[in-house]
Amino acid sequence: MNSKVAFLGLGIMGGSMAANLARKGFDVNAWNRSSDRPSITTAREAGAKIFTSIREAVADADTIFLCVSDVPDVEEVLLGDTGVVHYARPHALVVDTSTIGPQAARRIDQALQAQNLRFLDAPISGGDIGARNGTLTFMVGGDRSDFEECQPLLAAMGTTMRWCGAVGSGQGVKLCNQILVSTYMMGICESMLLAEQIGIDPNLVVEVCGSGAAASWALSNLGMKVAESDFQPGFTIANMLKDLKFVTAIANADDKRLMGVELARQLFQAVSELDDGAEQGTQAMIRAYRERQQPLVE
Amino acid sequence: MNSKVAFLGLGIMGGSMAANLARKGFDVNAWNRSSDRPSITTAREAGAKIFTSIREAVADADTIFLCVSDVPDVEEVLLGDTGVVHYARPHALVVDTSTIGPQAARRIDQALQAQNLRFLDAPISGGDIGARNGTLTFMVGGDRSDFEECQPLLAAMGTTMRWCGAVGSGQGVKLCNQILVSTYMMGICESMLLAEQIGIDPNLVVEVCGSGAAASWALSNLGMKVAESDFQPGFTIANMLKDLKFVTAIANADDKRLMGVELARQLFQAVSELDDGAEQGTQAMIRAYRERQQPLVE
Repeated sequence: MNSKVAFLGLGIMGGSMAANLARKGFDVNAWNRSSDRPSITTAREAGAKIFTSIREAVADADTIFLCVSDVPDVEEVLLGDTGVVHYARPHALVVDTSTIGPQAARRIDQALQAQNLRFLDAPISGGDIGARNGTLTFMVGGDRSDFEECQPLLAAMGTTMRWCGAVGSGQGVKLCNQILVSTYMMGICESMLLAEQIGIDPNLVVEVCGSGAAASWALSNLGMKVAESDFQPGFTIANMLKDLKFVTAIANADDKRLMGVELARQLFQAVSELDDGAEQGTQAMIRAYRERQQPLVE
Repeated sequence: MNSKVAFLGLGIMGGSMAANLARKGFDVNAWNRSSDRPSITTAREAGAKIFTSIREAVADADTIFLCVSDVPDVEEVLLGDTGVVHYARPHALVVDTSTIGPQAARRIDQALQAQNLRFLDAPISGGDIGARNGTLTFMVGGDRSDFEECQPLLAAMGTTMRWCGAVGSGQGVKLCNQILVSTYMMGICESMLLAEQIGIDPNLVVEVCGSGAAASWALSNLGMKVAESDFQPGFTIANMLKDLKFVTAIANADDKRLMGVELARQLFQAVSELDDGAEQGTQAMIRAYRERQQPLVE
């Protein structure tokens, strides 16, 4: 069965994902809000057809992928005046790979169900490299049968596809992931600051600590970037701040104090206010320790 | 060459380490402050000779290992009235595997040099399991030639032996390690709290997050223990607090604010004041979030 796929949102992530679907032989109709991005060319050259309206892209799609940024973008593309709900085939499956938090995911699921459409939240991790190489992880919430239906499509873009439970669960696991990587980054920055202060080669921290109980993907892949102030983004601080906003909203609602990730969020916020900070990789957190003038916590 | 080895301090770690040296055929004379510990039996049964005085244990040793706890213990065993300096052979090599911070290591090195003894700081990671299985990591500071001389001995107890630079450097790398594992633990606790709050299976956090950018030894090995309140110690909170004291002393001396690890230290401190807390594993940090009555940070 060669199902018709629509792909909405051809940014750095979405462009590569749509390209991988097309390369695996799926029939991909794609759309992006703006029309002048290199990532759109990537998708087109891989065989995706690019349309200038959501209407054309989704008209005969069985599965509609979405890869945009924040909640308002997802709501506009799905529920807005020229959005998916007005043009999708009845019973089409909408798969949103954006990180928007569990509450928004459940709200959107309700709105789509009311229009006889199905919904999965399927946030991703693995960054631009994972999108390009087809090695993303998908954390999926919604009906298990819907998850199983779209697994061949996910497998064209990723290597780990996990059903996490009811709608919103994929978002929940993704937020747990962001808590972990944000707090790890504090540890990496602070270990590098101590190493610098006492004259320890940062390579030793990465190699020796990375071989034992302090081993982590982040230390191995971002440790030397922290030490050498290489802030090229894998995942930007702006995107991390967006994701942590959902963590804070949930934690505050229940009066839980997640103090570690809250401190990490403040450090990212401080860097986002420095030159270029928001669009640098999360490892630029070190700038909050090195450059800020004011104490962060009173 | 079958050099004579003394081993001072036969606790859970030292007992297993002395046993592994003896099993590999080294001639081990050992001593412990108290005489009634099962870990002493472990060493004896593996072939170590147990003596009741430091004098007898070190009398004809070429290499003298030390595995005790805090700075005062190390100073007493080495420099005290009945300590190593009074009985060791001239030019003997003292290898201290305790975590005592770089400053104390340098101070002790000076004192031993004045007595014509050589010194390496060689703190370890890998926990009781690593000590038992001979898979410890040694982070070694001091003269490189001294490090090379004792490598065959280290290889009987560990699998990773890294020379880190001048005396005190092994301690420095070890403190970086403790910063990393302490802050990681905050992330693991907080991700599990969020998962619980929104009804996510903690196994999913360990498995799915553990397959990507949030992967860490700590998440894989301690994540479910956090979720299931299994606080059996691999490494105790009391020992972690001892180690973080050295981090704080260094950071404060230079007016550096390592806010992440300072927060982690406060959480460990809060748990150490709860029933049994000090002797539980570091994963019991979660108790600071669950059980404490007072807000931790004003």
